[in-house]
Amino acid sequence: MMIVDDAFPVEPWLVRETELCLDLLPQTESLFALSNGHIGLRGNLDEGEPYGLPGTYLNGFYEIRPLPYAEAGFGYPEDGQSIVDVTNGKLIRLLVEDEPFDVRYGDLLSHERILDMRAGTLTRTAEWCSPAGKRVKVTSVRLVSLAQRGLAAIEYVVEAVGDDVRVTLQSELVANEDQPATSGDPRVAAVLVNPLEPIQHEVSDRGALLIHRTRSSGLMLAAAMDHAVDAPGRVDFDGDAGADWARTTVVCGLKSGERLRIVKYLAYGWSSLRSRPALRDQAAAAIAAARYTGWQGLLDEQRAYLDAFWDCADVEVDGDADCQQAVRFGLFHVMQASARAERRAIAGKGLTGTGYDGHTFWDSEGYVLPVLTYTAPHAAADALRWRASTLDLARSRARELDLAGASFPWRTIAGEECSAYWPAGTAAFHVNADIAMAFERYRVVTGDDSLEKSCGLAVLVDTARLWLSLGHHDRHGAWRIDGVTGPDEYTAVVRDNVFTNLMAAANLRTAADACTRHPDLACELGVGTEETAAWRDAADAVHIPYDHELGVHPQCEGFTTLREWDFTANTEYPLLLHEPYVRLYPAQVIKQADLVLAMHWQSHAFTAEQKARNVDYYERRTTRDSSLSACTQAVMCAEVGHLELAHDYAYEAALIDLRNLHHNTGDGLHLASLAGSWTALVAGFGGLRDDEGVLALDPHLPSGISRLRFRLRWRDFRVTVEATHTSVTYTLRDGPHTTLTIRHAGEPLEITTDSPTRAPVRPRTPLLPPPPQPAGREPLRRHVQGHTSSREPMITVRSSGRPK
Amino acid sequence: MMIVDDAFPVEPWLVRETELCLDLLPQTESLFALSNGHIGLRGNLDEGEPYGLPGTYLNGFYEIRPLPYAEAGFGYPEDGQSIVDVTNGKLIRLLVEDEPFDVRYGDLLSHERILDMRAGTLTRTAEWCSPAGKRVKVTSVRLVSLAQRGLAAIEYVVEAVGDDVRVTLQSELVANEDQPATSGDPRVAAVLVNPLEPIQHEVSDRGALLIHRTRSSGLMLAAAMDHAVDAPGRVDFDGDAGADWARTTVVCGLKSGERLRIVKYLAYGWSSLRSRPALRDQAAAAIAAARYTGWQGLLDEQRAYLDAFWDCADVEVDGDADCQQAVRFGLFHVMQASARAERRAIAGKGLTGTGYDGHTFWDSEGYVLPVLTYTAPHAAADALRWRASTLDLARSRARELDLAGASFPWRTIAGEECSAYWPAGTAAFHVNADIAMAFERYRVVTGDDSLEKSCGLAVLVDTARLWLSLGHHDRHGAWRIDGVTGPDEYTAVVRDNVFTNLMAAANLRTAADACTRHPDLACELGVGTEETAAWRDAADAVHIPYDHELGVHPQCEGFTTLREWDFTANTEYPLLLHEPYVRLYPAQVIKQADLVLAMHWQSHAFTAEQKARNVDYYERRTTRDSSLSACTQAVMCAEVGHLELAHDYAYEAALIDLRNLHHNTGDGLHLASLAGSWTALVAGFGGLRDDEGVLALDPHLPSGISRLRFRLRWRDFRVTVEATHTSVTYTLRDGPHTTLTIRHAGEPLEITTDSPTRAPVRPRTPLLPPPPQPAGREPLRRHVQGHTSSREPMITVRSSGRPK
Repeated sequence: MMIVDDAFPVEPWLVRETELCLDLLPQTESLFALSNGHIGLRGNLDEGEPYGLPGTYLNGFYEIRPLPYAEAGFGYPEDGQSIVDVTNGKLIRLLVEDEPFDVRYGDLLSHERILDMRAGTLTRTAEWCSPAGKRVKVTSVRLVSLAQRGLAAIEYVVEAVGDDVRVTLQSELVANEDQPATSGDPRVAAVLVNPLEPIQHEVSDRGALLIHRTRSSGLMLAAAMDHAVDAPGRVDFDGDAGADWARTTVVCGLKSGERLRIVKYLAYGWSSLRSRPALRDQAAAAIAAARYTGWQGLLDEQRAYLDAFWDCADVEVDGDADCQQAVRFGLFHVMQASARAERRAIAGKGLTGTGYDGHTFWDSEGYVLPVLTYTAPHAAADALRWRASTLDLARSRARELDLAGASFPWRTIAGEECSAYWPAGTAAFHVNADIAMAFERYRVVTGDDSLEKSCGLAVLVDTARLWLSLGHHDRHGAWRIDGVTGPDEYTAVVRDNVFTNLMAAANLRTAADACTRHPDLACELGVGTEETAAWRDAADAVHIPYDHELGVHPQCEGFTTLREWDFTANTEYPLLLHEPYVRLYPAQVIKQADLVLAMHWQSHAFTAEQKARNVDYYERRTTRDSSLSACTQAVMCAEVGHLELAHDYAYEAALIDLRNLHHNTGDGLHLASLAGSWTALVAGFGGLRDDEGVLALDPHLPSGISRLRFRLRWRDFRVTVEATHTSVTYTLRDGPHTTLTIRHAGEPLEITTDSPTRAPVRPRTPLLPPPPQPAGREPLRRHVQGHTSSREPMITVRSSGRPK
Repeated sequence: MMIVDDAFPVEPWLVRETELCLDLLPQTESLFALSNGHIGLRGNLDEGEPYGLPGTYLNGFYEIRPLPYAEAGFGYPEDGQSIVDVTNGKLIRLLVEDEPFDVRYGDLLSHERILDMRAGTLTRTAEWCSPAGKRVKVTSVRLVSLAQRGLAAIEYVVEAVGDDVRVTLQSELVANEDQPATSGDPRVAAVLVNPLEPIQHEVSDRGALLIHRTRSSGLMLAAAMDHAVDAPGRVDFDGDAGADWARTTVVCGLKSGERLRIVKYLAYGWSSLRSRPALRDQAAAAIAAARYTGWQGLLDEQRAYLDAFWDCADVEVDGDADCQQAVRFGLFHVMQASARAERRAIAGKGLTGTGYDGHTFWDSEGYVLPVLTYTAPHAAADALRWRASTLDLARSRARELDLAGASFPWRTIAGEECSAYWPAGTAAFHVNADIAMAFERYRVVTGDDSLEKSCGLAVLVDTARLWLSLGHHDRHGAWRIDGVTGPDEYTAVVRDNVFTNLMAAANLRTAADACTRHPDLACELGVGTEETAAWRDAADAVHIPYDHELGVHPQCEGFTTLREWDFTANTEYPLLLHEPYVRLYPAQVIKQADLVLAMHWQSHAFTAEQKARNVDYYERRTTRDSSLSACTQAVMCAEVGHLELAHDYAYEAALIDLRNLHHNTGDGLHLASLAGSWTALVAGFGGLRDDEGVLALDPHLPSGISRLRFRLRWRDFRVTVEATHTSVTYTLRDGPHTTLTIRHAGEPLEITTDSPTRAPVRPRTPLLPPPPQPAGREPLRRHVQGHTSSREPMITVRSSGRPK
């Protein structure tokens, strides 16, 4: 379904839906999802239906499902892990007299939903006239507490309009909700049927509690609710529960203008270890704390948390209201996915849907953590601690694969490899270098080496060991890595993927340097100088193929001599749903930035001319069938001077879900692309690089953005960068010293806490003209002011009457 | 289980089992399988149990099963095809008084089974003393008629020994037999449970009929039985039937020395089109014809058929009794798998078991048809006609894959692709060139171009079109094929696999030449001179990588620079059950002859020195984890002068099932390896080559074989080649002319029908010393006279008291 501008007017701090479109429910449920990284609630309607995908998730709570293979192979994972739709506590059903409030019946006179990114709430306002002609106004405000990890809360108000009415509220907990049928798209998660086994149900004074357990993974879950009620007259209460449901019923009469208000406190706890009574008490304690805090207290805590977040994270984009809204939307959801994850994974779709089975991929370390490291480093550290906690599983996976060290999974919830297609799973060993890079970035950016000492060094050492056992020195001494898959999933099991080789070399050097920094810890891990010397030898001898005839880097050995893809004949995207791998792999067709990503993450390994030529070459062959691509193309197009094209890509990365550009927002949001909207702006137009261990910036704006202002944490400083078309102003706050030497436009620049430093923008002249993309895969054009091209067939854009 | 020499004394025309070993039942059922290419009966005991794998098969009769994928992909086949264990008509249960004859109870005083390769029968003799002390002698002779395609027959005789006894025979038809649990080995076929839906059952005077249908594939099957009975006194008959069974019961009393003899006639018919009455009548007609012929008539027909076969096919091996027996065993089963297949496929395991789901692979055209083309060309033509009948399916598969022409399946029963793992399925496009080669060999060897005209040309044209769309000319004009898998399944999805490129080029040239021969037919297929010119251009420009530093051909681009496999650390074979593909693919470890196979099939494309160096290089890296390898290694080791090593490999190819060398003979015989025993002797020690369109021979024997004599059909001639260590005698019979020019030892030689021609053996001096194999993968040594090494851990060899 298309999401049109009218339904979502562009506002800088809000996402507002002005009318309810039932066809868009799957997408809006994802867009309006609330989460704190521990609990995730899809934006389902309070009354539960209609729905696109009912969804309540707890980070790390999964069920095991068998992975079937028509032809088995050694080392194929036998068990998958799937995120579970847990007990739904969002449900508040309303009966107006004897008619259930259902937007499909009666007359929906108005309906508005607002996601407030500063308040951290989802507000819904509806006026409804029942089939019998009774009119009510319903207002609900929902939050998942950022301050109280196990808690969500809903304020639900119903007001009589016109006639007197009797209203009945049924506030519920429901386990094992019905799920919609799965799609034929392999990217859509397998949906599990009745995954929860009932253990206990209890009814309390004004609430209830349900305990369930998954059958195979053996995880236990407690969900509790309690209610505060505010009514004008007599109110009746009733409580009831069964194995899979619990209900608190509130009945009262309302005169016109009178309101019944309930606040529903909703607490979750789960564990693989703790007992049933312990979980029950944990949920009860969360409820007690919530009642103590009260609704307004929760709202205040929420805003305070977000004020602090935005103070370090906000990006201001003058001149492009869409991107302004979208980058905040992206940052908000990145924050939601990670804030209180606390040693659980950040999934590819956060806690917003069941897409990709709820798995975490390299997206987490590669796309999401860079943003968090600069804006919310505690969340980055927690995610890295989660990864390190799975090191033993990665070590046994490496042993299974006859490799040294540790091999982290391509996709997982709890740490075990769950990828059932090894050419784009196990073979994508680069995930290990991506993880190592994330640890190193955290250390470089925060200046905090406690994480490295407590768990990072072991990860660096065992990933280095993996690489050394995976690569080999050929007879001429070059160090090569064969049979691996880089980021681009349309080319797999190749030799000397440039991205992988550069990242592996960096992993080896980083590990060797870290061992030098911590000789005692290295010794405990059994690392001697011979081993680190071997790592450095391999890194120094790494083979980087180069096509001298064309003057470009092949993505992997021989890539530039593969058959060209016929982009005139094969125009159904994404290609993976219309073309077999056997045709895609050996052709020069690219799903996503790969060599181009290498130029971003290992920027120093390429000359400016190489970057320009490579961008020109790969732009023509990249389909962007992966949501991980546009942000990287934005960054590199900006670097080589194609600023307007970079702006187009930044828009695409940022608007991927707000405009449903990949047609699967209904399965959950694309966290990496949302994080990428920050990256496109900050690394693209801000020129942020850190691959040489220094804070390097080099802003240059496209014509459609008049001013870009963003904040970064660096060591204990906060740096604000404000760029216009002509100058850049650096403002330094806090910090251990009064000065910081950064790199501006390639040259050292000292900035101080005394006063802002202004520097001129270095003009960027592209070496080559802007490259074309495959026919039909041009990005939406942003640089024609006041006009958005309609070439992109996926969305319909109507004038919204608001300034762009 | 091991098969030891004692249990199978070596006899030139018989395979004799002297005692019944229940642990060996799975293997002996395969070894003693009888078939005519249409009906296949595993060598199950008459009384049905104990069994390893009950099996009755009809060629082409299969059920559809879904192919599951944990991660789906475009173009993955959704349906598999599995051979079905059809209605079992072999069953004859015997009760001695009231005790069932079961070899596990009472005393089995003697038990012998003999497969007679000239009679075409399986004879069983058993003396048994029942738990109650009653003694009988049972003799059964079983045949699947080579003369009457729909017919099998069993003569069953029971004789009282000592006491008088009442004997009861229950002769049965049983559908939907219980199957043993499947193994964890991915090569073992999925076993189907209750695949047959009952349609009709009928009891006749002394027999019965059952009709069933498969649920998904909708194939209908009729099985009928009738009996002739010969008894000394009063006999009672009874007939009964249910949905899945029918029974004829015969009761009589026997005095000591008296015998009850029944002949059971068993008829099968199946169809996807014909009606139930038509099938019923077809089975009844086969029974009527059998009764008319009588048991002795069937035996006579059988022997006459085999006399004719052996006259053109026999290979005599003096000095190596094991190989003598084994090559006849191989030829016998190749004949059985194909004799009356008549436009059905020749499966990888014939009709001897459910291994590989009963699928046919490239083995058929690549390994089995060369033997048949020289020994039973009508069977080769039938198999090729079957392949051509699936051309439309191959065309639509090519369209699905966005390719031109036709893409034949990697594995199938009915023609649809059933391979669920594309890197070793769809990507193994060489199957198309192998098919083209088989058509061309048939034309060259038989001189008959009617097959080419009726169906071969269309296959050649559409496979040529496939190759042209699959390969591409690179920027230097070289024609390359990327992303395909050659014969070696431990290296997949590679570029410029030498075998594939050479075979594709040959396919293109063959197609172009065939179009020149048949311009009108070519025109009907839409082939113009521009298209054939493009085929020739590609073939002429084909890129054959060569490693100039090492002086060897890499199996594919870059192969010789891949990581070496550590054969000291990884010694569990077959490696595919102990190592992941992600490790095997990018290493220099080879499952089976690939480059070495190219040197056999495209012999003219390599110099003698290249062959010697390549054999030396690849021998060190080949595990022979595929049964398709040893015969090819025999051929090429012989060519480069490692005659003793070639002899070892010939033995391995020939004895693969008689000694259960691959541990899975119980799932069915390895038809390609059995055919390969002929190839090892005739192409290896006989030096047969035909890749340049002439009959080339160049015999040279290993020390352990004193004389080798084999027969070939060439055009309408029969050629007998008799080689000793010093000379070769060519005898020409029949034929359209009186002379034939062949190539002997590289030089033209005219032979005539007047008298045998004698020529000296060309001494073969190896360029290099015999190469070593990976540790633990040396073949069993044959060249130490009178002694067999025990290094091979799979079998235990005890002295058999017979000359070797």
